[in-house]
This record gives sequence, C-alpha cells and structure tokens, in this order.
Amino acid sequence: MQKFYNNPHRVVEEMLQGYLKSHPDLISKTGHPRAFVLKNLDRKSGKVGVVSGGGTGHFPAFIGYLKPGYLDAAAIGNIFEAPPAEVFFEAFRQADCGAGVICIYGNYKLDNQCVKEAAKMAARENIRVELICANDDIATISENGDRTNSRGLAGEVLLFKIAGEAAARGKSLDEIAELCRRANRNMRSIGVALAACVIPEVGVPNFEVVDGTMEFGIGHHGDPGLFACKTRTANETADLVMDEILKTYDDSEKHEVIVLVSGMGATTSMELYILYNRIADILRGRGITCAGAFIGNFFTSLDMQGVSVTLMETDDELKGLVINME
Amino acid sequence: MQKFYNNPHRVVEEMLQGYLKSHPDLISKTGHPRAFVLKNLDRKSGKVGVVSGGGTGHFPAFIGYLKPGYLDAAAIGNIFEAPPAEVFFEAFRQADCGAGVICIYGNYKLDNQCVKEAAKMAARENIRVELICANDDIATISENGDRTNSRGLAGEVLLFKIAGEAAARGKSLDEIAELCRRANRNMRSIGVALAACVIPEVGVPNFEVVDGTMEFGIGHHGDPGLFACKTRTANETADLVMDEILKTYDDSEKHEVIVLVSGMGATTSMELYILYNRIADILRGRGITCAGAFIGNFFTSLDMQGVSVTLMETDDELKGLVINME
Repeated sequence: MQKFYNNPHRVVEEMLQGYLKSHPDLISKTGHPRAFVLKNLDRKSGKVGVVSGGGTGHFPAFIGYLKPGYLDAAAIGNIFEAPPAEVFFEAFRQADCGAGVICIYGNYKLDNQCVKEAAKMAARENIRVELICANDDIATISENGDRTNSRGLAGEVLLFKIAGEAAARGKSLDEIAELCRRANRNMRSIGVALAACVIPEVGVPNFEVVDGTMEFGIGHHGDPGLFACKTRTANETADLVMDEILKTYDDSEKHEVIVLVSGMGATTSMELYILYNRIADILRGRGITCAGAFIGNFFTSLDMQGVSVTLMETDDELKGLVINME
Repeated sequence: MQKFYNNPHRVVEEMLQGYLKSHPDLISKTGHPRAFVLKNLDRKSGKVGVVSGGGTGHFPAFIGYLKPGYLDAAAIGNIFEAPPAEVFFEAFRQADCGAGVICIYGNYKLDNQCVKEAAKMAARENIRVELICANDDIATISENGDRTNSRGLAGEVLLFKIAGEAAARGKSLDEIAELCRRANRNMRSIGVALAACVIPEVGVPNFEVVDGTMEFGIGHHGDPGLFACKTRTANETADLVMDEILKTYDDSEKHEVIVLVSGMGATTSMELYILYNRIADILRGRGITCAGAFIGNFFTSLDMQGVSVTLMETDDELKGLVINME
C-alpha cells in the first residue's frame, strides 16, 4: 500500500507538527517536545487535570483528545511505543491545576512502568497522580475473569470523556478515579482484524492475516488474540463479538449499555454502520437498552482493516458524563 | 481487501439502517425510503430548508451531515449513483419550512438532471428551490477558466455548513443562495489517489493506479484527472496540489483562506496531517492567511487511498459561517 509519507522515520514529528498547525489556538508546546497541553487551561482553576498518553498510530488517540471536556495534557510516544516517564511527568506538571491529576493509560508493560515512574517524579513535586489502567480487552482476560494482564482497547476513550467531563464539573480526584475505575470494570471490548497494519519504519505488515481468514480478539498493535478463523460476514462477525462480550451478562437482570464501535484505520464508516446495524438488533433481542452508540474512528491502529467493539454497562451518572461524546 | 459486508447488493440499506439506529433521536424516515429529514425540524419556523444528496460511498456525505447547522433533509442514492428526482423531491417537501429550500449538489450529469426535475415538481407545489451546483474540482476546469463542466469535490461540505449556519441564523433563500454561489466560486480543489476504491457490487477496483504511480486530479468516483505520475513524497504531493490550486492567486493581493483536507476512505489521519504540515508552510510562504483548517474524512470515496485538498478564499461573512465546522 502506497502512503502519503516523506520519511518513515519522521512520521510522528511531521504528524504532530501538522496537527498543531491545524489547531493553532488549541494546544501549547511544553518543556518536553512530546508533551502537550491545552492552551486555555486555567492553572488556578482548582480542577483536576486529566492526562493520557501512549504510542502514536492510534489517532485520534492521543493528541486528538486534547480538547475541552477530554484531556488537558497528553504524552506522545513513537509508533506503538510508550512515551518515556519524563514525557508523562511533564504532562502531569502541565495539567496540574492544584487538585491533582488523573492519568488514564492502556495496560501495556512499558506504559505501566513509565506512568508509575512519572507518578513518583510528580509526588516529589507534591503533585498527586491517580493512575487509571484501562484493561477492557476481554480477549486477554484470564479464565477466572481476572483482568490484571488484560490489554487496553478503545474503551479507554470513554474514560477520557468521563474524566474530562467530571473534571470540568468540579469533581474531586477521588471521585473521578472512582468513576473511571467503575467505568473500566464495566467495559468489555473485542477487536477483529481482516488485514494487518504496516508500521512506517518497518514497511511490511507487522503480523499476518491470511486472505480468507480473520483474526478474532486482535490487539491494537496487531498482537494476536483468541483465534484466527474463516472470514465471516459482517452479521456473523457481530454475532461472534457480541457472544463473547455478552458472555457474562445475566439476561434476567436489566442492563443498560453504551456502545463504542471503532474503526482501526482503513475500515470504512459504511462497514462500521453495517456492523452496528446487527449489534443494535442483538442488544434489542437480548432486552439490553442502548443508552448511546458511538461509531467511528475513535482509537485506530495505523491502517489496520479492523474494528473494535466496546460495551460499557452504564448508570445515570456515567451516562450523563459520556452521552455528548463526539 | 476483505470487508465487513454481508451482501454487496445490500450495503446501502444496511448502512442506512445502522446509521439510523445509532442516531435514534436525530433523523426521521419520510414518504420515500431514501429521503431523510431532521427529527426536530420545526416546519413552522419560516427558516430556509437546506437539502443535499447524491450517491452513497462518500460518508459522512450525505446522511452524516443531517444534523443541526448542516442539512435539514437528504436524498440518498445507490453507490456512486444520483438519487432519482422523486427522492430529491421528497427531501425538498420535508425540508420546506415556508421559506423555500436550497439544494446543494455535485456537478454530475445525472445529479443535475434529477435535482432540476425535482425542483420542477416542487414548483408545482409552490415550494421554491434554489439549486447550488458545486463544481470546485479544478482538475476538470476548462482552459479559459470556465467551470460549467467541472466536477464537485469535497468543497461541497463547506457549502453545507455555510447554508446550514446561514439558515439557522434566519437568512433568506436569496441571501443563502448568494453566499453559497460566492463560496463555490471561491473554492478550488484537487484530488490525488494512491490506490483505487472497490465498488461492493463489482468487487474489483473500479480503475487502476499502477503501483509506484499516483493519479493527480482524481474525481470522487475514481474518474481520472489531469495525469498519472511517479509517486511523490507527501511534501512533493502537497507542492504539486498547491501549485495547481494557487495558480490563479495573485501574490500581490491579500488572501485569506479556509483549507479542507479530506481523506478518501482508507487514508489515515497521520497522512492527512503530514500533508497539511506542508500545506500550512506553503500558505505561510506565500503570505496567505489560513482562517481555519479542517482535516479528516469529510467526503470519502469508499475505500480509496487518496486525499482531496480544497482552498476557499474567504471573507468575514463566509468565515463566520464556516469556522465552527466539525
């Protein structure tokens, strides 16, 4: 696949420069070239600062969520690589408005190490940081339901919105951390890929999806999931995904959910809506109320041809924070 | 390329159904299954109705622009096919709130015929319709600068926003038509493709871009443009595009522009921002002020790997109508 690149080793820098030029009034540079902050953030506001970060290649994550009602500061890594601790630390310093910082990140080894190290650095400057580790990918859940080693998938975006809205409404760090942890517990995601992505510096697909097959339970970096199988139709794919996600749902109870269907980069909106058409029918058939559906490229994986589906069981409080997500 | 489809002959229906299910409070069905209207449109408001329509495969055009501040009603055709006159007519009837209807459409033969026929049908019911024909694609401009036969490209989206905002602010049909015609005259667009799209019912690319080459001046349906050439870098591509667009700009005059960089379906946001990074530099180098830059999938061409760049010379009035586009 041909690309609009210049130098595959400079895509992150050039993308960030282009993004900043297209949003001249929104984002400020900081003391670190890979940490960014909202230009109009009022550091005397006493509101909780909301931070996230991670590797590049997941646009709009992470730089694209640096906007009012979402993130206040972001730490940007290389393609599919966690930003070093000092980048997160600079983002924490920038986002701190006197009420502490909440940091939402995906459950990957290096990200975990870097945010923890950065939180220690912040503590030495008396900035309290609460870490929220998104681990919504149920393809990597352990058999007993433990999610300690589960990956983060697109559900992380719902946490950006929940934290961003709650912070804007003046909630405390402890309250926001509780909301995010509850939302994260309530989320279950599955990814499916029909074709792999290509890391610019590598130039060839970083894993293989044999034509005529699909990869079920794929991660955001092409890390494999539950199984490969013969390619299904859109409806059959939605059925498989929803069977897995709804496995723990008790049909005798009332459930209300938020649905997030995210393309992984090269997937067309037409495909996402065809998938959602079936997902909506499945929910109705199971008597599950859909409080809001968000369909689009919310958390991509370079140019992967794939989709992730996230269900979050909701309640009035979470719903009120998420519902106007864009 | 594998796809999340069920039946290639049913993608339009299933996409529309999925879209409506994901926006249950936004859009109403009408007397024709391919015409849609805003649910909360106040037909006694006396505001001008804003309509567009065209073939499917250009998401978010057209159904995705059915939202407050953009379109009030939309007519949806099959993949890359104009909706029949009766669909446009139903959209006109639905959008009419007593002050007439403005209909924005792309300059393609069948679209032209259908909207004109529909406008006649509307006239018989005393609904006045003003037709705005978007023809911003300068790859198809005649040598003397005449645009009678120029195709519409993504610039049409700016007209949706201008008309939608102006109508919401109570402008008259004549005023809105003048604004749209001025904006259309001020727009110049060029498309570039690195790979063709695949029409679902056909199943193979609808034109060929030989690997190692790119197609310069491509249309939204894969219709070829000015020339094919060896694939350039992103910066060289932006240079070529901007040379063509800025050909008629007089550097001794002051220019202020709105920029729209739209992916064509399979293009990643990273690529779009890398291209914009250069476009912004070119504008600055030429002393042209950028009043707003919109980067994303605004008008796609199924899964084409390509981009269109639109420049619109702006003024305070047009700028005020476009600037909060999403």
